[in-house]
Amino acid sequence: MTRLIALDWGTTSLRAFLIEEGRVIETRKSPHGIQKLPEPGGEAGFNAAFTEICGPWLEAEPSLPVVAGGMVGSAQGWREAPYVPLPAAISDIARLSVSVETDLGARLHIAPGLVQDAPGLLPDVMRGEEIQILGAVSDHPERAEASRIILPGTHSKWVRLRAGRITDFATYMTGEVFDLLSNQSLLSRLMIGTGDEAERDMAFLQGVDLASESGPGDLTRQIFSARSLGLTGRMAGNVLRDYLSGLIIGHEITSARRELDGGEALLMIGEGALCARYLAAMAHLGLPPVVRLENTAPAGLWLFARSLGLLDAQK
Amino acid sequence: MTRLIALDWGTTSLRAFLIEEGRVIETRKSPHGIQKLPEPGGEAGFNAAFTEICGPWLEAEPSLPVVAGGMVGSAQGWREAPYVPLPAAISDIARLSVSVETDLGARLHIAPGLVQDAPGLLPDVMRGEEIQILGAVSDHPERAEASRIILPGTHSKWVRLRAGRITDFATYMTGEVFDLLSNQSLLSRLMIGTGDEAERDMAFLQGVDLASESGPGDLTRQIFSARSLGLTGRMAGNVLRDYLSGLIIGHEITSARRELDGGEALLMIGEGALCARYLAAMAHLGLPPVVRLENTAPAGLWLFARSLGLLDAQK
Repeated sequence: MTRLIALDWGTTSLRAFLIEEGRVIETRKSPHGIQKLPEPGGEAGFNAAFTEICGPWLEAEPSLPVVAGGMVGSAQGWREAPYVPLPAAISDIARLSVSVETDLGARLHIAPGLVQDAPGLLPDVMRGEEIQILGAVSDHPERAEASRIILPGTHSKWVRLRAGRITDFATYMTGEVFDLLSNQSLLSRLMIGTGDEAERDMAFLQGVDLASESGPGDLTRQIFSARSLGLTGRMAGNVLRDYLSGLIIGHEITSARRELDGGEALLMIGEGALCARYLAAMAHLGLPPVVRLENTAPAGLWLFARSLGLLDAQK
Repeated sequence: MTRLIALDWGTTSLRAFLIEEGRVIETRKSPHGIQKLPEPGGEAGFNAAFTEICGPWLEAEPSLPVVAGGMVGSAQGWREAPYVPLPAAISDIARLSVSVETDLGARLHIAPGLVQDAPGLLPDVMRGEEIQILGAVSDHPERAEASRIILPGTHSKWVRLRAGRITDFATYMTGEVFDLLSNQSLLSRLMIGTGDEAERDMAFLQGVDLASESGPGDLTRQIFSARSLGLTGRMAGNVLRDYLSGLIIGHEITSARRELDGGEALLMIGEGALCARYLAAMAHLGLPPVVRLENTAPAGLWLFARSLGLLDAQK
């Protein structure tokens, strides 16, 4: 039986999967994202987090291969893995991985990120999402022929796949801008309590509608209405947060939809409640149907390990 | 001789002007904005700040009239002054003022804000800027006939004046969004040091150019380039802050310019370095010439006091 330890190691969390023949048979979680290590001092902190989460599995089976994707491969991570330039085939991702020897003796193989850096284009980067993309196409190679993968989040990505390659993508700072505005700006002052679900959904779509009617440059003007609507009593404080969410997500969709091509499949990967909002907004605005996928990171890390030849070795 | 004490009392600062026949003859400053009072407890805190800054003048001349504009008239201020609905003539502003008795015996007259709340329009509010607008037109009534007053800042305002009335305006959260992104977002990590002036100006205009080419919804996508340009080495960390500033200010101008009418005068009031950036961006984008005015708050408060009849009494 072929087994793998796969780590999804981000900035604020670390998840570990024990995978057997492509199926996750055990999952472990830890708060030790690369910015929340159990002890400071680089190497030692990473090793401590690694030992804590993988120790039990590696003690039982020391020869298990181990791979990781995410910010653990960034300049602030354990070992910096380069960015693979686009357009990139799936196999290119394995080629630019790096590895590090752990205190437990196991070698950890870290996936690279992707960079869009062609002359004349605005550059863009991703790290972590490429693993989700690998997972989305691993059992469905037809998806890599013509699809757009949407990954809502702190830094949302809209990624184009064509003829087996990731050709280009765009990042929107939607989640981070929403968090800053709803928690730390003047707008947060009037956001009090939580409205009932139907009212919240209505306020969200009201924001989406306004965004869809916006002209270039209108975002910083439209978001101030999350204050003025509250001050004038036209919208209750307990749904202003949802309205603001609709505005900012609506701006992302309004921008990104212009680049959609007919005939491509739309796929979405991300946290459930957030994806539900994106799906509601996109349906409301008349975009084509979107297929939502569950967390594809384990499948992506399995494919990454297979590309590295780590799974053949066990056979 | 007619004299007046005029207070520009905002959220984080308090400035007091002793004005004689319309000319500022003495200025005093205090850190006691309405959120930084010398003692807590509402009334007592406001009185303490007021006594500290106005005491010397009122001891010498107890009958001096005193007026104030700004956030001191907000719900979090000393006494809430209502919002005057638009369109509003200059004289309407005096009509909706409120007053409060101070511990020194003097009565403080507080100016109201403005609200745009017509059905079918996105509502908008201002408090403090209306005083600057009064000042801009006080000795130049022709400016109230057909002009656009631009007030760059935390919450920038573009205000339309027609036939002696303030008819409508738009608020852009430009300054606050820039502060949040450049100090508290992931973008701030790569912003290290300060480039030389020519390089900073060039990065600023590069941001303005990208903004001017944007489509609806593109802001949260474009700002991520302040990270990717740094990561790919295409832009130095010491000018990324200026590039981001150009992007966000550029979005404001790109949106607001669509509403400009031919034949109106463009006037700008605000802090010097910030206005210089707006003027550079607007000239770069080919907008009509803008006349920059120095701080017009003292003149505005003088006009407010005259509308209240406070200056006649002394004659």
